[in-house]
Parts: sequence; C-alpha cells; structure tokens
Amino acid sequence: MSAPSNCTFCRIASGALAAAKVFETPNCLAFLDHRPLFSGHCLVIPRVHYELLADLPDPLAAELFAQARCLSTLMEEALGAQGAFVAINNRVSQSVPHVHIHVVPRRKGDGLKGFFWPRRHYQDDAEMEAVRTALAEAWQSARRCGPPA
Amino acid sequence: MSAPSNCTFCRIASGALAAAKVFETPNCLAFLDHRPLFSGHCLVIPRVHYELLADLPDPLAAELFAQARCLSTLMEEALGAQGAFVAINNRVSQSVPHVHIHVVPRRKGDGLKGFFWPRRHYQDDAEMEAVRTALAEAWQSARRCGPPA
Repeated sequence: MSAPSNCTFCRIASGALAAAKVFETPNCLAFLDHRPLFSGHCLVIPRVHYELLADLPDPLAAELFAQARCLSTLMEEALGAQGAFVAINNRVSQSVPHVHIHVVPRRKGDGLKGFFWPRRHYQDDAEMEAVRTALAEAWQSARRCGPPA
Repeated sequence: MSAPSNCTFCRIASGALAAAKVFETPNCLAFLDHRPLFSGHCLVIPRVHYELLADLPDPLAAELFAQARCLSTLMEEALGAQGAFVAINNRVSQSVPHVHIHVVPRRKGDGLKGFFWPRRHYQDDAEMEAVRTALAEAWQSARRCGPPA
C-alpha cells in the first residue's frame, strides 16, 4: 500500500515531519500528540499506511495493541499517572485517516468528560434482543473473528 | 486468580447474572452494555478476573484486543454503523474493576462528545521534551514492551 504523500502520520513515520517520538520499532511508533488531552497523551501508529482497523494485517494489529497496552501501563510510573485511557476512533471522529491508538494518562479528578456522555436505555427487551442477534450472527459468520476453529 | 464473588462481570461470565451475550469463546465474551452510549454498545471481557490491562497475560490480552477489533469492524454491516469507538478506562474512570473494552457503533452526527474534550497545549518545548524523555526511557527499560529483542 503506498503512503499518501499528504498523510501527516506517514510523514512522521518517514521522518519528513518532526514529532516528539516516544519509541520506534520496525513496524510501529509512538509520539506525543501535539494537542494533548493531558500532558503525556501519545499516539501509537503503524509505520505503513492503513486507514482503518479492519485494514490492518492481524500480526500488525496485535503488535500495535500490545505496544499501546505497554505504554498505558508504564505511564503510571513514568508520569505519576493513576491510570490510562486507551481509545480508537475508527472512521467516525477519526481526525487522521491512518490508524492510531490514543494512550492518555489519567488522574482522579482530571476532568476528562468521558463519563458525562449521555447514556441511554434500550426501549424494551425486544429492541435489545434484535441488536444482540444482529451482532451475534455477524460474529458467527465473520471469517476473521468468530468462534475458534 | 479467584473471581471476586461480587464482581458483576465475573457473575456474567459464570452465567450467575444474565446478560445479552454477543459471543463467547473459551477465554473471552462480549455482551451488550445495559446502559449504552448507543444501541449496540458492547463490552468485551476476559472470563477470568483481571482488574487492569497490566495484569493480563500477554496471550489473553492479544485475544481480547483481536476480538474487540473484529467486533468493531463487523458492527458496520450488522448494525448499519459508519464506524466505531473502541475504548478502555484503565483504573481511572473504570466503573467495574474487571478489564473491559468498550466497542461502540458510531454514526456521523451521533453527538458523541468525544471531540469536545478540551485539548491543551504544552507550555513550551522543554515541557514537551521532559515528558517525551520520561516515557521514552520507561519504554526502553520496560521488560514487557521495549525494543524488539
């Protein structure tokens, strides 16, 4: 897959654009978001351009998630954080169309509005069951996930 | 690790508490959040009780993330979603102390306030570099992540 020449994250990966890099591996890198939710907010990306989670080869996805998990846990000691927020916007709200995992240090009372999102209720059991069935059937028939062989 | 008898997610995993299950594997399961951000909001959990991301054995973490990724992609067809939000609250804002990955279907204009969180700026380059260095050094010396062997 060719890297779009105007992709900000491809340019960071190639070194054409400077970034505050936290680590680099042959397949992945992490750098500080320049407009962080909180100081220490990192983005973990694959070097190669893939737009969506579904586009990633399985081994690359596994490495990307593993690095994000590591980063989320070492933030506590490195930055005196009390926890972390790990998040991916896939397509909707995805500001850069190059897969990236947000890893954000958290402290109690830091004001992240995550839990002020309005929560809803299902109208009734029938609505909930229809949604459950749609997802369960899709999972059963998915080639790349689904039940173990 | 013994499952706390009062852990809601352990009770769902054991079948003691009913839930709208989307899939089950020997190690993981997914079910509908009963107070969703949007209809179809799922939680993916390990069957065995682990509180934090750092506590998970590597293979289990890999499987959990892989299942969450699959679920996030199949939501588009199964529910007519346009994208997904995948998120983990690790310790801070973690409502149930049993690792869980939120997988939430998204549509454009759905009103998720994710991008209204206030963003900040680093005070100056020195502050940013100090944070970068702290994280980079922690990553270099981490046993479980760090540079490839």
